Amino acid sequence: MKAIVHANISGLKGLTYEDISERAPGYGEVKVKLKAAGLNHRDLFIMEDRNEGESPLIIGSDGAGRIEAVGEGVFNLTIGANVIINPCIGWEMTHEVPSVPAILGGPSDGTFAEYVTVPATNVVSKPAYLSWEEAGVLPLSALTAYRALFTRGRLQQGEHILIPGIGGGVATYAMLMALAVGAKVSVTSRSETKRQAALSYGAEYAFDSHSNWKDSIGDDTVDLILDSIGPATFRQYFDIIKPNGRIVMFGASSGDQIEIPIRDIFFPQINIIGTSMGSSEEFTEMLQFMERHSLHPIIDKVYPLQDTIQAFHRMKLGDQLGNIGIRID
Amino acid sequence: MKAIVHANISGLKGLTYEDISERAPGYGEVKVKLKAAGLNHRDLFIMEDRNEGESPLIIGSDGAGRIEAVGEGVFNLTIGANVIINPCIGWEMTHEVPSVPAILGGPSDGTFAEYVTVPATNVVSKPAYLSWEEAGVLPLSALTAYRALFTRGRLQQGEHILIPGIGGGVATYAMLMALAVGAKVSVTSRSETKRQAALSYGAEYAFDSHSNWKDSIGDDTVDLILDSIGPATFRQYFDIIKPNGRIVMFGASSGDQIEIPIRDIFFPQINIIGTSMGSSEEFTEMLQFMERHSLHPIIDKVYPLQDTIQAFHRMKLGDQLGNIGIRID
Repeated sequence: MKAIVHANISGLKGLTYEDISERAPGYGEVKVKLKAAGLNHRDLFIMEDRNEGESPLIIGSDGAGRIEAVGEGVFNLTIGANVIINPCIGWEMTHEVPSVPAILGGPSDGTFAEYVTVPATNVVSKPAYLSWEEAGVLPLSALTAYRALFTRGRLQQGEHILIPGIGGGVATYAMLMALAVGAKVSVTSRSETKRQAALSYGAEYAFDSHSNWKDSIGDDTVDLILDSIGPATFRQYFDIIKPNGRIVMFGASSGDQIEIPIRDIFFPQINIIGTSMGSSEEFTEMLQFMERHSLHPIIDKVYPLQDTIQAFHRMKLGDQLGNIGIRID
Repeated sequence: MKAIVHANISGLKGLTYEDISERAPGYGEVKVKLKAAGLNHRDLFIMEDRNEGESPLIIGSDGAGRIEAVGEGVFNLTIGANVIINPCIGWEMTHEVPSVPAILGGPSDGTFAEYVTVPATNVVSKPAYLSWEEAGVLPLSALTAYRALFTRGRLQQGEHILIPGIGGGVATYAMLMALAVGAKVSVTSRSETKRQAALSYGAEYAFDSHSNWKDSIGDDTVDLILDSIGPATFRQYFDIIKPNGRIVMFGASSGDQIEIPIRDIFFPQINIIGTSMGSSEEFTEMLQFMERHSLHPIIDKVYPLQDTIQAFHRMKLGDQLGNIGIRID
């Protein structure tokens, strides 16, 4: 089959589009013929971290397609069924948090290929209202956003949430989901285009990350901040968060360390809440939530499989609003 | 009346034992004739922070005594009733967290005096099973420990809690309360005497804060860490905390800033939870909890009111296990 394979050279220069053998489903597994896939920043981190001596790896965590073959011990899935793939392997129940969940596309072979073989518990019926491309880009970022907002952030109708750095997949799903439950949503971005887009979706305030946040938010305050940036913006959160507010963290795009003023945590009784990916339970809940609110992913651009390397170059530029997709014929 | 008054000179050298006028209760207030009071580290911070030009202040947050006079609008309290004072002013309901709660003994006059005048909503019947001295040292640290453990930390029976730096009031109440609900409790201290004392109360592991924590805790892991130390110990927490674990912070004895490795928060889904003092609701619940479990404060030493300055010198040395009390005749 055709696939986007990463050799043991760090970064994008390790990528090739090539023929590679398919893997038949083992016990409890299914093989899926992919129709669409999606990019995540995680793919870039995985490629950066790979070293000499490691086996070739098919990149990609997100995908959707048709079941091509089922392994022994799989009784509830039939060949030809349309499915969407949950990339978090081995995390069934929400309350049983694994230390670091295993993810499709590193360590195990991913979705930028004609076929992928996964545990049967990791496929869910594709909602009919979504196109293949929408289903293909959705899994990891929508799951992360759903868990961050609701399981971990406990967002309620009428609360005010700030999403710094609108643009990437998780942030845009979080914006759509928060608006869907009747929260007030504010965003930051250095890009005027992205700020305007967020306002058109219904954001309350959209301001430049380099501005004075307290002024930009009209002296309003927020209940919940969804942080994926880290050190570059973290200090500003304490200027605008309410007492008892929550900061849910799922990323660290500006650095690995944050300095926290301890008294700004314990006097106003702030909660800093780490989150990452989500469980199978949450994956199913997330799809039901999206369908109930008729939410569609925001798709930035779709590339054919053989042009995946160009798709990654677009992601590296950081200009996209929403997900970058891959079409697999 | 006699009182321990702090003039506008920073630190302990601003303290004097002197005669000062009493204050009659205003609308909704009661005047309490104090029988006992207790020291908190907070008193030291308040005295350090006071500047030239500020009015003299009676120090002290903790106290218990008899109602001497009631103001207008107070119907549920009678003269002569034995009461324990809740030092958190203006925080009735647990879910309504004020930004920074007001506390007796700075900004308003405190308990190191023959009399104190407080809102009637801030006195609760003194549990009969406690001596005056036990009731006098209990309020602020037991309230802080109760909220930190149960409201904020959601400690459950069978969970493993670590209390770094056993010795001070909050930490010792937290140890007793956690043991009372059937949690496994471990502690750290640089003092062999304090470690031995903690083991005699039922602690599982008691180890030197300067040791390798992972080895010292027998490769066990913890669900909850009650942090009042901050930067000196914070990094070690990530070596021994379980995925989804909670770090409840109520103090910063080793510095104002902590550096946090972001990935150690979001991958294992750690929660960092600020807490401070507690509500009137929690104060009442805490007293009921203490009585139900027959918990008595651990009292380090009791001084007469006129020797309060010596009591503070003992606190500064840091040798105490439990609370330092003041007897007021």
